[in-house]
Parts: sequence; C-alpha cells; structure tokens
Amino acid sequence: MIAGIFAAGAENLEVLFNLFLIIFFAKLLAEIFERLKQPAVVGEILAGVIFGPSLLGLISSSEIVKVAAEVGVIFLLFTVGLETNPSAVLRVGRKAIIVAILGVVVPFVAGYALMKVYDGSSAEAMFLGAAMVATSVGITARVLSNLGLLDAPTAKIILAAAVIDDILGLLILTVVSSVTVGGVDYGKLFFTASLAIGFTLFVVFIGAPFVTKISPKIERLKIGNSFFIFGLLLCLGLSVASAYIGVAAIIGAFLAGMALAEGAEEQPEMIKQTNGITEFLVPIFLVNIGMALDVSVFKDYSTVLLAVVVTVIAMLTKIFGCGIGALDLGWRRAGQVGIGMMPRGEVGIVVAQIGLGLAVIDNKIFGVVLFMAVMTTLAAPPLIKWIFSQEEALFKTIDTEDAGGIVVNQEDWSRLG
Amino acid sequence: MIAGIFAAGAENLEVLFNLFLIIFFAKLLAEIFERLKQPAVVGEILAGVIFGPSLLGLISSSEIVKVAAEVGVIFLLFTVGLETNPSAVLRVGRKAIIVAILGVVVPFVAGYALMKVYDGSSAEAMFLGAAMVATSVGITARVLSNLGLLDAPTAKIILAAAVIDDILGLLILTVVSSVTVGGVDYGKLFFTASLAIGFTLFVVFIGAPFVTKISPKIERLKIGNSFFIFGLLLCLGLSVASAYIGVAAIIGAFLAGMALAEGAEEQPEMIKQTNGITEFLVPIFLVNIGMALDVSVFKDYSTVLLAVVVTVIAMLTKIFGCGIGALDLGWRRAGQVGIGMMPRGEVGIVVAQIGLGLAVIDNKIFGVVLFMAVMTTLAAPPLIKWIFSQEEALFKTIDTEDAGGIVVNQEDWSRLG
Repeated sequence: MIAGIFAAGAENLEVLFNLFLIIFFAKLLAEIFERLKQPAVVGEILAGVIFGPSLLGLISSSEIVKVAAEVGVIFLLFTVGLETNPSAVLRVGRKAIIVAILGVVVPFVAGYALMKVYDGSSAEAMFLGAAMVATSVGITARVLSNLGLLDAPTAKIILAAAVIDDILGLLILTVVSSVTVGGVDYGKLFFTASLAIGFTLFVVFIGAPFVTKISPKIERLKIGNSFFIFGLLLCLGLSVASAYIGVAAIIGAFLAGMALAEGAEEQPEMIKQTNGITEFLVPIFLVNIGMALDVSVFKDYSTVLLAVVVTVIAMLTKIFGCGIGALDLGWRRAGQVGIGMMPRGEVGIVVAQIGLGLAVIDNKIFGVVLFMAVMTTLAAPPLIKWIFSQEEALFKTIDTEDAGGIVVNQEDWSRLG
Repeated sequence: MIAGIFAAGAENLEVLFNLFLIIFFAKLLAEIFERLKQPAVVGEILAGVIFGPSLLGLISSSEIVKVAAEVGVIFLLFTVGLETNPSAVLRVGRKAIIVAILGVVVPFVAGYALMKVYDGSSAEAMFLGAAMVATSVGITARVLSNLGLLDAPTAKIILAAAVIDDILGLLILTVVSSVTVGGVDYGKLFFTASLAIGFTLFVVFIGAPFVTKISPKIERLKIGNSFFIFGLLLCLGLSVASAYIGVAAIIGAFLAGMALAEGAEEQPEMIKQTNGITEFLVPIFLVNIGMALDVSVFKDYSTVLLAVVVTVIAMLTKIFGCGIGALDLGWRRAGQVGIGMMPRGEVGIVVAQIGLGLAVIDNKIFGVVLFMAVMTTLAAPPLIKWIFSQEEALFKTIDTEDAGGIVVNQEDWSRLG
C-alpha cells in the first residue's frame, strides 16, 4: 500500500517537521520578547519549556535534536572565538584566572555544604557542587552579542574566565566521578589537567600565529570557499580533539575561532557563511535547554523549595565569587563579571546527566539541578541587560541591524571606544 | 572512573569525529579532482566509496549522517531554487513536460523488459523500472552550478524537467508499491497526483508573488536576520509539506527557493548565509551516496554483469528518451538535456530501499540498483562538463571564484547572454 512509501520516509518527515517547529516557535517567542524589549534568548529557551514535552508537547528532543544542539553551541562558540583576538584575551588573562578560580571554589563549597545540610550523602553533595561550578558561556556570549557588547572591557574577562572555568569544572567533575565510584586516580587527573592546559596554551601561542601565516595559502586552494571550509574543519577538528582529551568540545571550538580571528578579519564572506550555520542551529540549542526541564517533578513541595534555594545560592555564589575577583575594577564592573558568569545552561545539565548515569543522584536531585541550570540561564539575560545598560547607553550609534545577529559591528566599537 | 565522563560524551564525540572526517575526506578528494580538472562532486562521492564502510571503513553512515545528508540536499535544492526565477521556468515549461514524460516512460519500460529477460518476477521488474525513472537533480544542479552554467538555456529545461520527473517518479513508485503489495488504489493515486500538481502550481502562481509582496514586512521584524530566518522556515516548511502529501521533500525546498528568488535578489546577506549551510551539509550528502555502495556484492560475476547492463541501459534510455524530447533544439542541446537528466543519485537509492523494505527485491537487486544509481551519478559530471564545454568557452570571463561555490555570478551572465 501507499503506507509503504510513507513508512520509509515517515521517520525523516517527523524529524524535519520537529526541526521546523523548534525553529518556528523559537523565533515566534524571540520576536515577542524583542517587542517587549526583553532578550530574544529568553524567549527561545521558554519556547522549549512551553511547547516541549513538559507542557504542550508539540516539539520533542531526540538524538538528532541533541546533536544539532551540540553542533549549534559549537558554532556559537566558534563565532565568539572569531571575534576574540588572542592578544585581547591575554591582556585580561591574569584577572580572568582569579575570577575563574573564585567562581569555581565558592559555588562548589556552597553546593556541597547545602546538600550536607539537607542530609544528602557526600557523593550527592559533591555532584551538586560540581553542577554549580561550570559557566555556560554560550548564553552570556549570545546575550552580549545581541546587545553589541562583545567588545566591552568586562566581556573579555567573562569569556576568558568562562573558558578557564570550564577546564576547572571538567577537572572537578573528573575528581568527583572518581571519588564517588572508587577513589581518585591522581595520576590520571594530573594527566588530564596537563593536557587541557597544554592544549589551550598550544592553540593560543603556536596555533593562532601559524593559522594567520598559512591563511594566504588556504585561499589559493582550488575548492570553492576554501577559507570557510578550512574554518569549518578547524572548528570541528579542535572540538573533537578537546572532547577527546577530556575538555568540553565548545572549548575547542572557541579556540579554533580565536586562532582564525586575525585571518578572518579580511574574510567577511566566511563570517557570514558561519553566521548562517549559527542562525540555523543555535535556536535548536536554546530550545533544547528549555525542553530539558521536566515541570512534573515540582509537584512535590519540598523539591520546589530545594530547587529555589539551590538556584538562589548558585546565583549568589557566582555573583559574589566572581565579583570579588574583579572588585578592583569598581562595583559596577565587578557586578557585570559576576552576573555574566551566572548562567549554567547546558554544562550544568551535562553534569546532572552524568550523575544520574552513575546512579549517584536520583530523579529529584536531577530535576533540582536542571531547574537551577535553566533558571540561572533564564535570569541571566535580563540581569546582564540591566547591569550593562549604562555601557550600552554609551554607544548609541551602534548598528542595531548587525547587533540583532551574532555578528557585531566591530568598527563602530573601535571608532567609539 | 574517568570512563564515566567519557561514556556520557563518547557517543557525541564519535558523531562529531565522523562528521569531521566526512567533510575532510570529501574536500581532500574535491581538491585533488579540481587539480586534475575533474568535477569536485565526483571526488566527494568517491570519498564515500573509498573511505566508507565498503573499503577503508574510516567513516560510516548513521541516523545523524542520513538526516544531515537529507537536510543538505534540501538546502542544495533551496539554493538552486533561489537562483531560478519562476518566469524563466515557465518559459521552458512545455518543453520540460515533454522531456520529463519521455524520460520517465522510456527508462521504466526498458528496466521492466530487462528484468523480465533476466527471469525476474513482475514485481522485481516493476521496481527496477521505477528505480530507473527518477532524476537526481541535486547532482546535475551542483555540477552546472560549479561550472557557472545554471543560466544556460538547457539548464532551465533540465531543472524544470527534473522537478516534473520527480513528481511522476513518485507516482510510479506509488503504483508499483500498490501493485506488488495488493492492487492499485486508483482513488488514492489520483488524489496524490492531484495534490502534487496542485501544490506545485499553487507555489508558482500564488506563493511566489505573495512572498515577493510581503518581503518588505519580513525585513521590518525585530529579530535579527529576519529574511534569512523566514527563508529557512519556508524551506523546511515546504519540504515537510511536500513530503507529507507524498512528493519528495527536495521538491518543496526547490519551490520555496523559487518563491523567494525575486525577493532574495536584494538580499545578498541571506544568500551567503544559506550558502554556509549548503557548504557544511552538501559534502555529507555526497559522501553518504558513495557510502551506500556495498562493493562486496560484486564478488559474484553475474551480479557485476547485470549491474553493468542495467547501468548502461539506465544511461542510454535517459539520454535518448529526454534527448528526443529536446531534439528540436539541435543535436548538441538535446544531448545536454539527455545527459543532464542521467544521474539517479539518492532518488534511485530511496526507491531501492523501499523495495528492499517491502521484500520485493533481494540484496543482489538492491546492490545492482545502488550500483546503477552511483555509476549514473559518477558518469554524469564529466559528461556534463564535456557536452557543455563549448557553452562554457563562450563565457570565458565568468568569475571563477564564485563558480567554485554554489553561488553563481548572475550579473556576468546577464551581461553576456
């Protein structure tokens, strides 16, 4: 029967329809939020909560959606890297390291203590602490980019600290996983740490100048769009490499972008092509975060209370932890750094998934961590917008067309800054 | 243990590494082929055969790869549609219909007769015939685009005929599936046919002018890159709609592009962003075709002979069937049309998969159809390049930079043509 034909294509049809609806609802709520003068990114995450399996059930997550979301956040960090000149990061390097370390230690200790107070096991306590550590630089980067603030002085510190943060967070996760399963393998831990740090330094000090040097040769290749293809391969390649040595894939993507930043300045075509992939996949990444929140676990009153407490502590410890590290820049800028480091987003969710997989935490704590990750992410954009509002007012002439997307008009900034 | 961490990310790591290798090998062979003055598209398909599971086994297909390939060919046809002004297609409409009908009838009858001579069942014979019917316009479009020939007079006929061809092919597949499983449902068949034709006419005559009319309103939306987002949604939406009513998704994508063609002329940004997605996903589509060829079924001498005979007949019937329909344009142009309609690519493979799923054909015939689909696809680019070579020589000043990608410099053409 005719069903035979549809059966063969039906699976793909469903996949395509789901992708269509995800992007459609994301952009519908983005447009509504923009008109309410709220960050579009919040609308896109809320689209996942409202239209996802938790409430209306019109869209759903799947293996395909997850991979598209992961590739989306990889390209988002790649784009952010493309606009981050290594020398600018190096200038804020020392400050970023202090911010990152305080932003890891304070939330971890607070999360551990909180869970102990709630009569959790040491293993649970360590996992909650670990989930509160990692910063979701993707969300902050998207909001700063939409506001046209990627070149603000504190933005550089936030992005650099978030990268260091992710490396430290992954190391803590390594320790916690080892302890809860059977004891720390210090040799392996030291090895992973050395690899991660060595990899980052290698890309910044050797990779970036090398790429800048060979850029003219890449342009002479016979294949079309060779510089874009090279960037694509470098982005995917370094993502895989960093995931392989135990650092998050997005770190590799960010480093790949940074290595290409100088060469890309003369490649507006390549920036726009990358932007096309980002605009296609980032809504899927944002909606997928929203879909991860299972609203039903919060029927239990005690879970709601714990979730709220954990969320508040997660926010305060990052704001104060990171803020203290940047206090010599003045209160307002310290606040910018603290709030910019607040969203946990997909990194907290990944930690929670690993904890659940190891049977260290149960569904309740999993729900609490998801709630914390989503709420810190939802709360961040309006707070970022608010604390950066004076900064924004200083640069009224910025091209608002471009600020809507991920490409920020850097010329306006350098002219004004 | 640390394995716990990798386990959670390991699956995605493998997926990413596979995607990286697919694009890397595709572009490596594309570069080699370009330097040998051969079409890059052949190199990219061969990368799938050589590095795929059939031979070296360094890359593999998967659900993710298949969806990426499908989305890739959807965006490829969307891009082709973006460069196809509806009025230009309407001008060649009557000719295209004749070419399409002859290009469907002649291969189907030949395929059926051939299988009967080989003592196949009626069901097998009908499936082989159906697999020889559909044209893979994606391959031809890519080659013509790379050569900067999308605006050649016969290119329009080929693209329009291939669209009609696909609709007719899908209808034949519907009949064949019905007959082999239990009897034709003429009511359903008529319904599908009417829907498919109505859908196409609706998009061309009502959708396209409507989109052109509302384009200025879309640009005024608050979200960033609104025209690109609109195009993205229209492309995915019409793909889903056409797949839903029983026509291939790529037809919907092509129609979406055509509806936007006029509005997109003032949106160079949007063209480049779409190009980014195409450049990312089309290599995956091409490599995936190459990976579908299982070399091991050809250890049996009789299978090889059958495969070669089927391939030769598949080529000749399209060349002569479609060529006769365009004979009044002169021998050379009739040859261009016939050869342009030759590649079966993914459409033939889809037919074979459905036949295997219905248990109508066995692994041997499946292998033969795959061989035919891949070989007609491999043979087409050099033949297209050869038969269009005089056409190409007429336009020496074409911007070769742009011809390397999918975006063809139309200004050069209109100035010269």
